[in-house]
This record gives sequence, C-alpha cells and structure tokens, in this order.
Amino acid sequence: MPEFLKLMPPDEATKMFFDHIPPARPRTENIPTVQALGRVLAGPIVAPETLPAFSRSTVDGFAVRAPDTFGASDALPIYLDLVGEVPMGAKPGFSIEPNHAAIIHTGGMLPEGADAVVMMEYTQMARANEVELMRAAAVGENIIKAGEDVLEGQEVLAGGTRLRPAQIGGLLALGITEVTVSIPPRFGILSSGDEVIPPEQRPKIGQVRDTNSYSLSALIEQNGGQAVRYGISPDNPEALRSMVEKALAENDAVVITAGSSASTRDLTSKIINELGKPGVLVHGVNVRPGKPTILGVCDGKPTIGLPGNPVSALVIAGLFVRPVVRYLAGMPAGEPRAFVPARLSLNVSTPDGRESWVPVRLIAGENGYAAEPIFFKSNLIFTLATADGLIKIPAAANGLAAGEDVRVYLI
Amino acid sequence: MPEFLKLMPPDEATKMFFDHIPPARPRTENIPTVQALGRVLAGPIVAPETLPAFSRSTVDGFAVRAPDTFGASDALPIYLDLVGEVPMGAKPGFSIEPNHAAIIHTGGMLPEGADAVVMMEYTQMARANEVELMRAAAVGENIIKAGEDVLEGQEVLAGGTRLRPAQIGGLLALGITEVTVSIPPRFGILSSGDEVIPPEQRPKIGQVRDTNSYSLSALIEQNGGQAVRYGISPDNPEALRSMVEKALAENDAVVITAGSSASTRDLTSKIINELGKPGVLVHGVNVRPGKPTILGVCDGKPTIGLPGNPVSALVIAGLFVRPVVRYLAGMPAGEPRAFVPARLSLNVSTPDGRESWVPVRLIAGENGYAAEPIFFKSNLIFTLATADGLIKIPAAANGLAAGEDVRVYLI
Repeated sequence: MPEFLKLMPPDEATKMFFDHIPPARPRTENIPTVQALGRVLAGPIVAPETLPAFSRSTVDGFAVRAPDTFGASDALPIYLDLVGEVPMGAKPGFSIEPNHAAIIHTGGMLPEGADAVVMMEYTQMARANEVELMRAAAVGENIIKAGEDVLEGQEVLAGGTRLRPAQIGGLLALGITEVTVSIPPRFGILSSGDEVIPPEQRPKIGQVRDTNSYSLSALIEQNGGQAVRYGISPDNPEALRSMVEKALAENDAVVITAGSSASTRDLTSKIINELGKPGVLVHGVNVRPGKPTILGVCDGKPTIGLPGNPVSALVIAGLFVRPVVRYLAGMPAGEPRAFVPARLSLNVSTPDGRESWVPVRLIAGENGYAAEPIFFKSNLIFTLATADGLIKIPAAANGLAAGEDVRVYLI
Repeated sequence: MPEFLKLMPPDEATKMFFDHIPPARPRTENIPTVQALGRVLAGPIVAPETLPAFSRSTVDGFAVRAPDTFGASDALPIYLDLVGEVPMGAKPGFSIEPNHAAIIHTGGMLPEGADAVVMMEYTQMARANEVELMRAAAVGENIIKAGEDVLEGQEVLAGGTRLRPAQIGGLLALGITEVTVSIPPRFGILSSGDEVIPPEQRPKIGQVRDTNSYSLSALIEQNGGQAVRYGISPDNPEALRSMVEKALAENDAVVITAGSSASTRDLTSKIINELGKPGVLVHGVNVRPGKPTILGVCDGKPTIGLPGNPVSALVIAGLFVRPVVRYLAGMPAGEPRAFVPARLSLNVSTPDGRESWVPVRLIAGENGYAAEPIFFKSNLIFTLATADGLIKIPAAANGLAAGEDVRVYLI
C-alpha cells in the first residue's frame, strides 16, 4: 500500500495544506444590509457618523443639572421648577437653567444644560410647576452621551466578519443600508465510481445512490460557500481527468468524493498531480474515520479527495473542507468552537493510536447529558444522520472509558 | 410603577407563556430534498427500501467463505482458488464455493456463498489462479450486510428534525428526492416610537434609526421563521392598535419592539389585552437586561412586546422569541445548547438578585479562552455587535468573580 507509507497527523496535514493555499482574495459584491445575514464583510466597516448623535435619556424621568439634586432623599426632598417636557423625536425648545427640571422620556434628547436624569419613581409633582426629587443623580446618570456608542471614523466591524443579527442592526443604526461582502467561494464537486448512480434513479443490484456530493454541498453552503455539482464520473482515468480539469477551471476549489478503493484513490491522486502544481500534498491522514484523504493544491486551487464512505466523507469535510470554505470566503482562522459537555456512557476503544472522531447521541439526564457512542462502520449512511455530534479521541489515548467527560461538537 | 409589581423569573415566564400557546400545526409544503437544508420535517420519514440493498465489501480484498480461512497466518498461509473479480456496480456472475475466492473492491457486491472479505494487504497471488491468505477472516468481517444501515419500514428521521447535511445525504440514499417540510412560521414585526425613523433616512436631531426590527428579523430567519416587517408606528394608540391588529391577522405570531418608556409599554400591553384572549400573561421579567418584557397570547397567537433597547431586545428575543419560532416551526423543545467554556477575566457584580446576561468577548490564551465582560448600557447598539457571546449569571448569585469558569453561548 505505497500511498499509506506515511500517514500524517491531522494538525500537520492542515498546516501543510494551508501553507500551500495562496492568500484568499474573494470576489465581492454590494448587497442590501437587510439581506446580508450570514454573509462575510469584504473589508472593515468604519462608522460614517457618531452614534448616538445626541445625548439621550435611558429612563423616564426628569432632566436636571446634577449638582441641583445633591443631597436629595426621602426625608429631605429637593424641589425644582418644571420648565417643560422634552418631545420625542425632536429638539427640546428650551434649556435647563440652575434649579430647573424637565419631563423626559426614554430615548428623549437631553436638553442643553442638563447632565443627568432622575428616574420617575423617585419623584412626585409637588405643585403644577414644581417637581419633588427624593433621590440625587450623579453627573451622567441615566443618560447615554453623544458618541458613547460609536464615534465617526471608528472601525466598528472587522473585514471577514460573518454577519449576525446584532451586526445587521448595528450597520443599519449607522445608516449603512448596503454592504460589500465576499461572493461565496465556488466549490466544484465530483463523485466517481462505476457503481454510483444519481439519487433519483432506482439502483440495480450492485449499485448505490450518490449521497456524498449532496451532503457535502449542504456542508459547504452551511459554511458560506457555493457548491457546484459536476455529477458522477465512471472509474475511468480520461473521464475523471476531464471532469476535474473542467471543475478546476470553473471554481475556486474542487472536492472529489472518490470511491474508496485503493485504485480509485491512486487515480484521484495521479490526476491531482497532473492538473497543477504542487499537486498532492498529503495522501493519507492519521485519523479515523477518513484515513484515505487526499489534500492537494492545483495552481493555487485547493483540491481535496474525500474518502467514499459517507461517515468518513463528512468527518473529513468537517476537518478540511470547512476551514477551506471559510478561508476562501475571507473569514479569519481560529474561531471558537462551541460544544456540549457530556459524560461518555460506554467505553470506546481506539487501540491503534490514531485520532478518532466518534459519533454520539446526547441523552439528557438529571446531571447533564450522557454521550452514547454510536458504534459505526463508516459505510453506514444513517450513523451520522442519527447522531447529535462527534467526540474526538486524541491519538495519544487508547480510547476513553465510560464515565469520562467528553466534549460533543454538534453536527 | 404598577406594571412591575410582579417581576416573573424567566423560567416561570417561559412556562406561563408556552402553557397558553396552542399545539403547533405548521402549514407544510413539498420541496426537493437537495434544497431542504435547515428546513423542518413535517412528519417522520419511514425508509421506503432497505439499505444497503445488497451485502457489500468495505475494503479491497478477496471475498471468501470465512471457515476456509481459519488458521491462516504468515507462517502458515492458506491457498484458495481464484474464481473471478466482482465487477463494480453489477451483480457478480459467479458464486463462491468452498475453497474459492474472488477479487472484490470496496463497495463491490458480495458474491453468493461468500460471508467475509480478507484485506488485500494480507494476501498475495501465489499462482495465476490461486491466492495466498496470511490472515483469517471471521464471518461478517469487512462486509456490510444488506439492511445493516436501514430496514424498509424503519423510521429513520423524526418529524420536527431540522435537516442537516448528513440527513440530506441519508434521505437521498433512500431515493427520497422530495420531502414534506413545515412552511416557516410568519412573524409580524412592528416598531413604535415617535422618534424612530427607517434606517435609510438621515435622523434629524432627536431621532434614531429603527434597528431592532431588522436584527430581530435576522434572528427569526436564523431560527427557521419568516419575518414580515410592518414598519414604524407613531406613539399613538389608534395607529399602533390597527397595525398590531393587521399583523395578528396576517401572521402566526407578532413581535412589537416598542419604545422603552413606561407609557409605550402600557400602551402595548393595553392593545395586546384588547386584541385577543387571554392577552398579556407576563408583564415584567426578572432578568437583566430586558425587565420590561411583555409576553402574551392573542386568540392562540403568541404576541411579544420587546424592550426598545437594542441589547435588551436581542437578549430577550433569544430567551423568548427563538423558542417560539422553533415551536411554531414544529421543532421539539429542549435541544442541547453548545457553549465555549472560558475563564472570566473581570469581576461582574449583579447585586439585585436578578438573572443577568452579560455580553463578553472571547480572548484566546494558552490555557483556553478568557471571557472579557463588556460593561454595557443596554442602549448601546454595538455592545452585542462586538461581543462573541453571552454569559448567564443566575439570580441567586450576586455576580461572578474574575477567574471563575463560565459558559459562553455564542451569538
């Protein structure tokens, strides 16, 4: 098995792979901000204006000069002259002179002269034009100052940010109704195998439906890429070569979900080497499932040969395709990954010193979750379809014992 | 402040709210499976066929009858007659008789008579028609049996499943190229406030742009709902009432991102009570930020009054709107929530015994992440836009000290 002489650890394989991918230069387009959820900013966003543009009250109450309220208490209230009510959405027509106060609502503009607001609940009307304060206010209390949120010219969002709901709101608050985002990188996807047929066909005996190219497309789209499917190539060097060549010409990256046999892997590897430099970088990764993974770069375009088994294909896509999609879309590396902590419910043995990813189901219990490993053959399509997540067993361990704490990465 | 006489703890508020929402009966539609990523299955999926349909090899090697290989070793190999090669994608034209073997590739159909496969690496060709086995195979070794993945009639996915990549693949493997999914529940969204203007307008002094209805729309869409924006109502009972009435008639639920002033809240509450039974269920939740939350049901339709402050609005939307979207889309409650564990970098004090949600930034360090709290006023729009996640400080705590372990829920 010459191609497995050197199985590379996953981390090393990732480094080797990314070291050969040129800096991402995503194409960009301008789109309305309201449609930009999940899209990736092409560059940093600089505030075109100051936010808020004026000092505002954060409560319902009375706008005052803070020193006028000092010492006010239930026992010794302070009385100020009521000079008006701040209208919502407009400039107050008055200013606050010493010993003056004005009714102000949440969001109302602080009148000239005022520097604090006393909350309504600590006040009462003494006479028609006099308010009684039972509490003092410090300078700045219950107000938000002009520019306290954002100053004009400040960078508010970094390039590469994948936009979330709060950020859509933030952009619109600044009047940014259009944003420049990266166009999702295009991933050409090919399947190969004489036994593989499109899913809408009924398999004859010995045939199986293509599923990897569809689950892979979904994973690519989920992570901000665009999947372009090229269909199924027979196990025939010329046919596969010309399909890969076409896919490389038309996309930013190519993924081949090859058959799992050694001859198919060798063919995929040979074609990647022929179609661009440096060609195959990694052939065989020390991970289970997914050992027969091929990572290459053809003239600057990442080209990946995924194992044919559905579980292997998706685990490996999570390890190597997902980061490439994010990288080519312009997102920064090293984002935090959330997980669900759980207690392993059964022993899992990984005797061969290979990093292992094991599908688990999460079972809610009184003291948190149990992670129930799904003992799987990587050919079983419904293993991952019925799992909640994956746990990683490091290469150094020989497995994990029931009762150990594990991190379940949801899938 | 009569409306805050009774602040309800968030868990209790959720229970009270959901107890009054009728069982979800989402409308459904049929769509191609390849477009169903993130959509919610309207009912369970039952396998229309057995998978795999035939027993297959999981490796490259030789199909054998296992008993013929017993005792084989490097020192004492066993020799079998080579009777052919299994073609890919077709039925083998032969069966395996005692002491026979046939070349088989990964995914190849196991010939009649064979019950195991010996891996290629433990074999060599002895003569033209004889293979030498250096390893024995147990019955079932290196094969996947017909039906081992799924049996015809078996329920493979539950109704309410939000489809992931692996499940798209699983459905297609069964030839299910169309699925019945729920139509995303429609959420009518209204803003109110005399000071609020659409984001494309330039605010005059005293005015602010509407952002909550857009960040909220994004949150609803992210969770599988459809947002329908009704624009901005002035702080005027008749105008707001007729907008809410129209939104209730045209949607499955309504969210009003009201102004934050007590009078606006009272108005929202009054309108919810007028427009349907039972009306307002919760007015004021014991949570920070987001105390002035209104939860109601109008003739079966969840109707929520969100605080006007952007941070409060999104935190509360995460607590109350998100679960309603998922419920109305037909998803089961109680899904596991993943988080990033981190160490708090600064003390956070929450002296008032109220459950608190604090935005934090995650800072990667050598020993995992530090969570740096963003000290915020809930009026500051960019607080959440620049945060990585939220931490929860329970009502019983009076805060958390620097160095404590926290769970950061990514936003």
